[in-house]
Amino acid sequence: MPRWLDERESRVWRAHLALHTELQAVLERRLLADSGLSLADYALLVPLSESPDGVVRARDLAASVGWERSRLSHHLTRMQRRGLIARETCPDDARGAMVRITPDGISAITAAAPTHVADIRRTFIDHLTPADLTALDDIYTRLRAALAEESEL
Amino acid sequence: MPRWLDERESRVWRAHLALHTELQAVLERRLLADSGLSLADYALLVPLSESPDGVVRARDLAASVGWERSRLSHHLTRMQRRGLIARETCPDDARGAMVRITPDGISAITAAAPTHVADIRRTFIDHLTPADLTALDDIYTRLRAALAEESEL
Repeated sequence: MPRWLDERESRVWRAHLALHTELQAVLERRLLADSGLSLADYALLVPLSESPDGVVRARDLAASVGWERSRLSHHLTRMQRRGLIARETCPDDARGAMVRITPDGISAITAAAPTHVADIRRTFIDHLTPADLTALDDIYTRLRAALAEESEL
Repeated sequence: MPRWLDERESRVWRAHLALHTELQAVLERRLLADSGLSLADYALLVPLSESPDGVVRARDLAASVGWERSRLSHHLTRMQRRGLIARETCPDDARGAMVRITPDGISAITAAAPTHVADIRRTFIDHLTPADLTALDDIYTRLRAALAEESEL
């Protein structure tokens, strides 16, 4: 038998799950209404729009959002149909698919960003002190490193 | 124009999103394989199994997982078909739907819990110090209170 979660452990774990669901609901409703982008679209367009040449290797895109490759591939197909991204072959590695943001993709995220960033500030960042940010930065980095190690086992 | 996220704010926000996705993938794959329950099924069965008479008001169930009522209702319909829960009318309030866990629902969560709790410990709780738990408890409570206030506006 495992050691059960104590009251605080259980409360923190459930709050972690519920907070994500609540944030997602509030942020996605507004983002969709404003720009037609889902949070998933937005999360993928950010690293693409920040890359100097607008191109990111598919595997790096998957890692940046924490998705498995099959989920990324299905989602990219839908974004490609909507004209937000294009797929290319990596010149250095025939097996390495690359993803390029299109001019329409750039327009979409440029239009969506101001309101979405303001929403992220109002619902998340504005409630965190500098000490909270330091704590979360440290905790999230540690948890993600442990998960990455587990996935490689 | 909003103030853009600085490097640390942006890193924490993206890590928050990615961590949830990564945890969800690892935990749900195992839970489904072991017990046939999704994380959503499990999250709803926990408060039901902990209630003294196995009955919880639908609106309290929705609040405990951070879901909107329509999402809860659709999900409960599927769980009802699988025999995990039953719906009842609240005796005190004709409009207040109640949800009851069935004996099959109790068996399902009882069988799933030991492995799932061990997985939550290994991927999440075991990497947190007591100070981390205190910090997360405080931060998550504050963020959820702010979101609840925003939803009421």
